[in-house]
Amino acid sequence: MRVLFEEMKNEFRRVFIKAGMGEAKAEICARVHAESSRDGISSHGANRVARFVDYVKKGWVDVAAEPSRETAYGALEVYNGNLGPGILNAIYCTDRGIALAEEYGIGLVGIRNTTHWMRGGTYGYYAACRGYVALAWTNAESVMPPWGGTDCKLGNNPFVLAAPVAGGEPIIIDMAMSQYAYGKLQVTRLAGEKLPFPGGFDKNGVLTDEPGLIEESMRILPMGYWKGASFAFMLDILGAVLSGGITASDIDKAGKGSCGGASQVFIVIKPDYCSSAQYAAEVIKKAKEHIKSSPLAAGFRLVQYPGEGRALAREESDKLGVLVDDTVWAEIKNL
Amino acid sequence: MRVLFEEMKNEFRRVFIKAGMGEAKAEICARVHAESSRDGISSHGANRVARFVDYVKKGWVDVAAEPSRETAYGALEVYNGNLGPGILNAIYCTDRGIALAEEYGIGLVGIRNTTHWMRGGTYGYYAACRGYVALAWTNAESVMPPWGGTDCKLGNNPFVLAAPVAGGEPIIIDMAMSQYAYGKLQVTRLAGEKLPFPGGFDKNGVLTDEPGLIEESMRILPMGYWKGASFAFMLDILGAVLSGGITASDIDKAGKGSCGGASQVFIVIKPDYCSSAQYAAEVIKKAKEHIKSSPLAAGFRLVQYPGEGRALAREESDKLGVLVDDTVWAEIKNL
Repeated sequence: MRVLFEEMKNEFRRVFIKAGMGEAKAEICARVHAESSRDGISSHGANRVARFVDYVKKGWVDVAAEPSRETAYGALEVYNGNLGPGILNAIYCTDRGIALAEEYGIGLVGIRNTTHWMRGGTYGYYAACRGYVALAWTNAESVMPPWGGTDCKLGNNPFVLAAPVAGGEPIIIDMAMSQYAYGKLQVTRLAGEKLPFPGGFDKNGVLTDEPGLIEESMRILPMGYWKGASFAFMLDILGAVLSGGITASDIDKAGKGSCGGASQVFIVIKPDYCSSAQYAAEVIKKAKEHIKSSPLAAGFRLVQYPGEGRALAREESDKLGVLVDDTVWAEIKNL
Repeated sequence: MRVLFEEMKNEFRRVFIKAGMGEAKAEICARVHAESSRDGISSHGANRVARFVDYVKKGWVDVAAEPSRETAYGALEVYNGNLGPGILNAIYCTDRGIALAEEYGIGLVGIRNTTHWMRGGTYGYYAACRGYVALAWTNAESVMPPWGGTDCKLGNNPFVLAAPVAGGEPIIIDMAMSQYAYGKLQVTRLAGEKLPFPGGFDKNGVLTDEPGLIEESMRILPMGYWKGASFAFMLDILGAVLSGGITASDIDKAGKGSCGGASQVFIVIKPDYCSSAQYAAEVIKKAKEHIKSSPLAAGFRLVQYPGEGRALAREESDKLGVLVDDTVWAEIKNL
């Protein structure tokens, strides 16, 4: 079904307030969840609302907690997230990164002991809309085998890069380290389809595009095979080192759900000190035209440019309402 | 054949001095090339020496040029590489990044109008051996199609992440945005073998592991399909924006060889301000043990950890001498 953005946001807000969150905080979290659904990322929008409430009830997320500063030096700051809502902690860190970038040109904020930030692109978009370049990542519990291993030891560890565009929409990538999410495997299996490309190994170690066989083996494929596995590992350890926080194995042990106690890093840069906003906008326009000038390959709908899918989804949501699964919506109405 | 490290380094040094480089600079460049070969990355070591000399002769690299500072603000600095040797420019930027990290905790150095940095991991290793975390990338000429396109519009844009380990070898990833390099396709084809995994599309748009068919179509696969394509695009534009430099389309137009006029970014962080070196070493040890505890998958030799291949190659080189192709070595001897 489709629900108007404001109605969806208000419903999430009601649920978060009922879960114990203050009104202002509930408004922010509700907006972020609703925006993710609006942009076509329901997996981190509407579909996570009930789970968030469940985490609060279990004591895995403390809706009242605020981040507290642990250390600071020049353009670096480190916080303890105190298991507060991941969205609020991440926005706080992005704001601190922006303040540091204003003062030093670049700032790094590490946060440990935080919780699921939902859609990582949210914070890249937030910074880039305000004129900043942002790099950010989170570590997470083990959901993916290392390269050459058979059980889950690596997090999905989304990595975000964002660039502002003067007078236009920012350019953002927000990528998990697995080729496909488990959510995508499930959806594809339920539709009786195969994955567009191999997404993992079956239990015999054979590469497969059959989602059910990968769900069974739990051997989802890192993006780019060994490359994504190594990248995920680096993001895990650097997240912990730069925040004084924990890595995947301890997130697993903590048993506080997805990303419970995770470590995150936010690097914010003021690009105007490197080149003018006008120059940057021209560079990006030219790079986009360069890509778009490539002849369309057989079997493709368009020559893809980062963020196009999101922009199309948003346009459709604004016109027709935001898509939400009937069951998910009914569940939220009952919370 | 195998050549002792010192002999190889001295031979490269002789060649670089003959090409017009001062003695001290030639020593540095020779060492970096020889170290790449020693670590098993001949593609960016011995195999690039003759090409470098050719670029110097063509006026694409100015052996006498030094980087000049264009702008600076707080922990940000931007340089013009003046088409100097990419290795020297990149070491200069890493040193500046280290100085900024000492002062501010983090520093960013952008450099435009530089030339091929050879192996990107060199600079991550350099910073990490001195106790710093480093992120670095370069943009490059178009060698890879965008996602959904059929001709080359994206650079390979290697991305480097490095973490120091107190009392041990740093952990480094240095990854190009294509799944395989053209060099790998050629080597595999000449050996009459197939790629371990599909490496591109044939001219009919069918995914293939036959290297010859990909060399023919020029449709090499981005790592992780659309993910690597988007990542490559972001690194291209952010490289240019953060250095006031150019992107792939203008590197193509400049016609000064691979990476001629490229834009690069170096971010250096002093992790000791975030967590202690001892804590970091423990975190990394634990994360490594976590990965290594995964049961070995069928068909694999080991559960892989970033940098293991490099460490093994280095050990072998130190014992037996550095591997170099006979023809490549003969060509260098004649330079």
